Amino acid sequence: MSNKERALEEHRKHNGKTEIMSKVRIESSDDLSIFYTPGVAYVSEAIKQDINTAYDYTSKSNTIAIVTDGTRILGLGDIGPEAGLPVMEGKALLFKKFGGVDAVPICLSTKDEEEIIRVIKAIAPTFGGINVEDIKSPKSIRIANRLSSEIDIPVFHDDRQGTAVAALAGLINALKVVGKGKGAKIVINGAGAAGIGIAELINHYGMHNIVVLDTEGAIYKGRKENMNEFKEHLAEITNKRLERGTLSEIVKGADALIGVSERGAFTEEMIKSMGDRPIVFALANPFPEITYKEAREAGAAVVATGSSECNNQVNNVIAFPGIMRGMLDARIKRINNDMLVGAALSIAKSTGKINAEHILPCISDKGFETRVAPSVAGKVAAAASATGEARIKVTEGQVKKRTKELIARYKKVERSALRHPYPESRETLL
Amino acid sequence: MSNKERALEEHRKHNGKTEIMSKVRIESSDDLSIFYTPGVAYVSEAIKQDINTAYDYTSKSNTIAIVTDGTRILGLGDIGPEAGLPVMEGKALLFKKFGGVDAVPICLSTKDEEEIIRVIKAIAPTFGGINVEDIKSPKSIRIANRLSSEIDIPVFHDDRQGTAVAALAGLINALKVVGKGKGAKIVINGAGAAGIGIAELINHYGMHNIVVLDTEGAIYKGRKENMNEFKEHLAEITNKRLERGTLSEIVKGADALIGVSERGAFTEEMIKSMGDRPIVFALANPFPEITYKEAREAGAAVVATGSSECNNQVNNVIAFPGIMRGMLDARIKRINNDMLVGAALSIAKSTGKINAEHILPCISDKGFETRVAPSVAGKVAAAASATGEARIKVTEGQVKKRTKELIARYKKVERSALRHPYPESRETLL
Repeated sequence: MSNKERALEEHRKHNGKTEIMSKVRIESSDDLSIFYTPGVAYVSEAIKQDINTAYDYTSKSNTIAIVTDGTRILGLGDIGPEAGLPVMEGKALLFKKFGGVDAVPICLSTKDEEEIIRVIKAIAPTFGGINVEDIKSPKSIRIANRLSSEIDIPVFHDDRQGTAVAALAGLINALKVVGKGKGAKIVINGAGAAGIGIAELINHYGMHNIVVLDTEGAIYKGRKENMNEFKEHLAEITNKRLERGTLSEIVKGADALIGVSERGAFTEEMIKSMGDRPIVFALANPFPEITYKEAREAGAAVVATGSSECNNQVNNVIAFPGIMRGMLDARIKRINNDMLVGAALSIAKSTGKINAEHILPCISDKGFETRVAPSVAGKVAAAASATGEARIKVTEGQVKKRTKELIARYKKVERSALRHPYPESRETLL
Repeated sequence: MSNKERALEEHRKHNGKTEIMSKVRIESSDDLSIFYTPGVAYVSEAIKQDINTAYDYTSKSNTIAIVTDGTRILGLGDIGPEAGLPVMEGKALLFKKFGGVDAVPICLSTKDEEEIIRVIKAIAPTFGGINVEDIKSPKSIRIANRLSSEIDIPVFHDDRQGTAVAALAGLINALKVVGKGKGAKIVINGAGAAGIGIAELINHYGMHNIVVLDTEGAIYKGRKENMNEFKEHLAEITNKRLERGTLSEIVKGADALIGVSERGAFTEEMIKSMGDRPIVFALANPFPEITYKEAREAGAAVVATGSSECNNQVNNVIAFPGIMRGMLDARIKRINNDMLVGAALSIAKSTGKINAEHILPCISDKGFETRVAPSVAGKVAAAASATGEARIKVTEGQVKKRTKELIARYKKVERSALRHPYPESRETLL
């Protein structure tokens, strides 16, 4: 069976991948009178008295919405909300498996920016966080930013912030491998959500020698062509020497080249023109800017891609489950860069022994589940406390411990549950 | 521990009652490449080619949203979306336990009718059905009706349609107990969502001797005071003799009195003035129009209330899980009264041996789970097929069988899962 056939068959077998389960035992009508009427009315009244207790008494504490409008699903483009749903379900499973987070896909029939914002604001009371997913950039950035200032739960933009955390973690370790520091010159090719996120986060981390390029070439203060509010901001915080030119020109002598652009955007010549022991991250998906092999052959000392087929995969799954876990456990109102840098440092540290072929943790690493997300969650919660964004007082150690418990328990539950096969369907029905 | 203390403690222990689970096993990175990138892209592409396959490949097939704006939560009134969440979670568990339906609470921060309609339309691609819940009437009716004509998934209004099905089922059996037929005179006190739903459904069932009253008295064609579009419709289809007056006047000689109004609305004198062997349904919650005991003492031959403490509880849980199950399995576009009457007849029939103390199935009846919802689901799906609302061809038997399987499997899964306790939380964190 080909991968395609297997994917279709496995998805069809049970009509999707996620289901709702009870965390409590309802066997008798006595149980019902506690978890439903009339007992639940006491709970509703308690929340009415103090709305913050919704985190204590309801699934809001552990549930997020993964929201897409279907306009930028994987590398498939604008394929609509229904076609985006299997991807959102998959992501929900990753949130649960690696972070103990309950995530609900919400696929929207509207592409209108204001409407998307209104809808997310409307459904926000249900959730402890929002994950904006696979919405076309820069609309996605505007949506996430607006929501962050208008609702009181964190709005995480994985394409930007998750990617930035994973890339920064990789960069920290790659620079260690090649013996360079924060002064290294970083060239970022691509100024979509990911490029903007990476540039802003590594700048916040303390690296100030950055040039970002888009299809027009280097972005600099004063450039007029093809700008938007986010590129204007990049022009403020990066490229202090006002470099102009194409990627081939800008990359000369650079220490690291990070691609969040498209297949084939990097050449061997570009890599050969870089500084000593260059770092190359070719993160375009599913096909990188240059293959791992080509980049190494051209002299790159450390290479990372988005592919699971090579070493050093820059994969958001090392970041988003732990980040969201920490934000939920600290019951935060708003994400900030301190939390994200904390997450990146934590990922860099939990990589274990680093070398040119291992700059990031990989989900197939032994102990990945119990090591990475718990550390990330603890650091994010600690940063939330330190920056005044946490609704409750939590320590790094408490969150780390609870994350481990949640992940270990879910693993057991899933194994038990899957012993009772979900009824296969539809063959007879269709 | 009081019921209140126990309810608060049990809800707090795990922060709510519901969680997300996987229906598939993701252990290796090979599994991941089927259920997430890159394999999931084939699934997305298949859905893009034919949007109907979203039912085959995603959780849309089995997932509904329970939507409230928090304006009419239980008997508590307008207490806000967060305070409504524990009730919606409880309802989600009932959908799963008794119908194998995955239900996601969506509690809205807006009370605006048009905004609620817009939001539900926007999130609709994610779901196979919508359950409009605990929204103030008649806004709730307008919302459900508008949505039914504007989106292509069923919009179920439990307060109206679920209550109507349960009441009709009870009425069918009660009339059998007292030896009366479709010509019986039925008086309905209350013209909110429930009263309107009951009147319309029993009319569709073929009973045409109905008078509905609101606080102004009998509703009749030509009445000017305190009308709305739904009462105008009631005036068209009920009260053919244009009776006017108060409940005390109208109820004289009636065969059945159904209350969906408020505590204390019925007196012993009213019941004494009714016809031979009268039927009294006092459904106001949590306190009935007259107590079970008082109504019986006043001469009612059959009495039903909304309370689980007496015989003959008219409880929507006998209706909504099976109805939604049948609608999902037939992948219907729109609900119609044939489906609802089918559901009521099926409930009436699955009551088993009927008598004055047992006119409806009760969740504590032996075999309730495997008998009631499967029958209801089968009948609803069959009615959907017969009326051209089903997207796929299904038989009553197929749906009945699958419903039994889903319920039996969930029971086992829940039992297995609850063996691994969810980590208790917050004591240390707060």
